[in-house]
Amino acid sequence: MEINNRTVRLLERPVGLPTKDIWSFKEENFDLKLDKNQLLVKNEFISLDPAMRGWLNEGKSYIPPVQIGDVMRAGTVGKVIESNNERFKAGDYVSGWGGVQEYTISEGKDYQIIHDNKINKQSYLGVLGMPGFTAYFGILREGNIKEGDLVVVSAAAGAVGSVVGQIARIKGCKVIGIAGGSKKCEYVKNTLKFDECLDYKNDNFFNNLRNVCRNGVDVYFDNVGGTLLNQMMIFISRGARIVICGAISQYNQKPVGPSNYLSLLVNRATMKGMVVFDYAKDYAFAQKEMRDWMLKGELIANEDIFEGIENFHDIFLKLFNGEKIGKLILKI
Amino acid sequence: MEINNRTVRLLERPVGLPTKDIWSFKEENFDLKLDKNQLLVKNEFISLDPAMRGWLNEGKSYIPPVQIGDVMRAGTVGKVIESNNERFKAGDYVSGWGGVQEYTISEGKDYQIIHDNKINKQSYLGVLGMPGFTAYFGILREGNIKEGDLVVVSAAAGAVGSVVGQIARIKGCKVIGIAGGSKKCEYVKNTLKFDECLDYKNDNFFNNLRNVCRNGVDVYFDNVGGTLLNQMMIFISRGARIVICGAISQYNQKPVGPSNYLSLLVNRATMKGMVVFDYAKDYAFAQKEMRDWMLKGELIANEDIFEGIENFHDIFLKLFNGEKIGKLILKI
Repeated sequence: MEINNRTVRLLERPVGLPTKDIWSFKEENFDLKLDKNQLLVKNEFISLDPAMRGWLNEGKSYIPPVQIGDVMRAGTVGKVIESNNERFKAGDYVSGWGGVQEYTISEGKDYQIIHDNKINKQSYLGVLGMPGFTAYFGILREGNIKEGDLVVVSAAAGAVGSVVGQIARIKGCKVIGIAGGSKKCEYVKNTLKFDECLDYKNDNFFNNLRNVCRNGVDVYFDNVGGTLLNQMMIFISRGARIVICGAISQYNQKPVGPSNYLSLLVNRATMKGMVVFDYAKDYAFAQKEMRDWMLKGELIANEDIFEGIENFHDIFLKLFNGEKIGKLILKI
Repeated sequence: MEINNRTVRLLERPVGLPTKDIWSFKEENFDLKLDKNQLLVKNEFISLDPAMRGWLNEGKSYIPPVQIGDVMRAGTVGKVIESNNERFKAGDYVSGWGGVQEYTISEGKDYQIIHDNKINKQSYLGVLGMPGFTAYFGILREGNIKEGDLVVVSAAAGAVGSVVGQIARIKGCKVIGIAGGSKKCEYVKNTLKFDECLDYKNDNFFNNLRNVCRNGVDVYFDNVGGTLLNQMMIFISRGARIVICGAISQYNQKPVGPSNYLSLLVNRATMKGMVVFDYAKDYAFAQKEMRDWMLKGELIANEDIFEGIENFHDIFLKLFNGEKIGKLILKI
C-alpha cells in the first residue's frame, strides 16, 4: 500500500512571529511496511497550542526543541489504519503525539485508545487532553483553590483558561476572566458562566480590574504574562498564588518581567511555574472527573475547528492574533 | 527629672535616595512623668536596616509607613532608667522598637529583656534580632533547604545574607555568596566560611557565576533584586525556590522585574515573598538555636558599629552605598 503523507516540517527557527517560509509543506510518499509493534494512524485532528511556539526555540526548556527538518510536533487524534501492536486494532480511535502530518507510524507508546461514544473525539485534544490537564492540575494542585476564593484567569476564552475558570466555578470560587474583545467576554460570561469577564482591550480596563479585584485576588492563573501579570501583582491578596502557566503575549518578543514583583514580598505571595507533564501519572483521574462534569453539563468544551493541513500556518497564527475562541484545532 | 531627648523625625517623604533635609535633628526636652505601666529606656544601640527605606514610602505595605512628623521607626537596644511596669526594673537591658532617639517612653509591649552575659547586647539587633530571624525563617521555612543543596545568597556580607549563608552551611548545604568588592568577598569566604563568594563588581562576574552554578541552584535567597535576580533565573534547578526577602538595589529607583521569569515555568520553580513578622511566635525558638550556634563558634555575628545619633543620616546611607560589612548599628 502506498501512502501519500502530507507533512509540515520545520525548515528554520523563527525570530518573533513565525513566517510561512519556516515550514515545508510536502507530500511524502512511502510504501507501508510496519515493523513489529508498529501501527499506522491516519490523523484526523491536530492540536494547535501556544506552547508550540516555545518548541521552535533553541535552548534548554522543559522538552527538547523541535529539530530542523523534523515534522512539527503536535498532539493528534486519529484512527488506526493498520496495526502490528497487540494494544491496538484497525478502527480504534487514538490520541497521541502524531505531529503535523496526515499519517503517523508509531510504536504506540504515547498513544491512548479513546473509548468514548458520548464525547466528540477532538475533545481529547482539548478539555480531555493536554489543555484540560494543564487547567485541572494548575488550578487545583498549584493554585490550591478553596471555596470562596477570588480567582482571576487570563486568556479566559482560550483552551486552558476556559477550563481553569469553569473548574474554579465548579469548586465554589468567584471567577473573573480576562479576554480580548466583547465577543469573547460575552462567551466567557454567558456560556462558560464565569462571574465576570473583563475586556483588556477596553479603555477602562484597569479601572474595571481594580473594581472587581478590590478585595484582593487569591489566585491569578497567568497565561499571558507582560503588562497584565504586572498589573495583577497590584491586586493580589495576602498569601496569594500566581500560577505561571504560559505567557502568550511574550512568546514572539523579548520578554519583560513584572516590575511590581515586590508585591510578592508585601503579600507573602507565591509565583510558581508549572508544566503539565509532571502530572502524567494522574491524567486518567483528571480525565474521568472532567468527563463526568462534561456529561452533567457543568463543563463545556470550547473548540474552534479549522480545516486543511495546507492551511496550518495561517491557522497556527490564530493562536497569537486573538482570532479564535477556545481550543484551536486543525481538521485534516 | 528633665530629659534632653535627641530625636530624628521624618519631615518629608524622599524620592530616590534620601537627602539629609528629609530629617529633623532636634533636642526635645521634657519633664519625666511616667504613667502606670510605662517605662523610660535610654537607647544605646539603634538598628539601621534596608527595610527602613520602604517605611518612608506612602502606600500599602506590610506595615504602615512612618508618618510625617514621627520619630523615625527603628529597632533599639537600651537600658531601663525608670519603670512603672512590673515586667521591667531599672538597669534591665531591653530590645524593642525605640526609634531613632536617645530616650523612649513605652508601655513595654514590644520590649524583651535581654538576659545574657555571654553575648554582646547589640547582637540582639543583628543575629539575635530581626535580621537573624529573617535569615533563619527565610532559609529554613521558605527556602526549605536540604543537606547538599546549592544555595546562593546575595548581599552575603550584609546583616541578613551573612546569617542566611552561615545557617545553610551549618545545615550541610554548599553556599555561594555574592557581595560587592574583594574585601567583602574575602570576609564572607574566610571568616563566615561560605564555600565561595563572588564579587558582582568584577568584570568576569557573570562567567564566574555560571561556573559555580553549573549544576543548578536549588535555593536563591534574594536581598538585592534587579539584574542579579534576573541572572539567577538562568541558573535555577528544577523545583528551585527563590526567596524574595528584599531588593536593596531597587529601593531608591523605579523597580525592574526579572525578564527571565519564565524560567520559573521551565524549572517548575517557586518565587515567594516573606516578611519576618509572620514568624513572631517562633522568634524565641530561633533565638535560642542561633545563640547556641554562636556560643559554639559556628555562627559569627557580623556588626559594623558607628557612633553618634547626629550622624544618623550619613550612617543610614551606608546601607545603600556598600560602605559597611555586616549588620549596621548606630551607637548613641
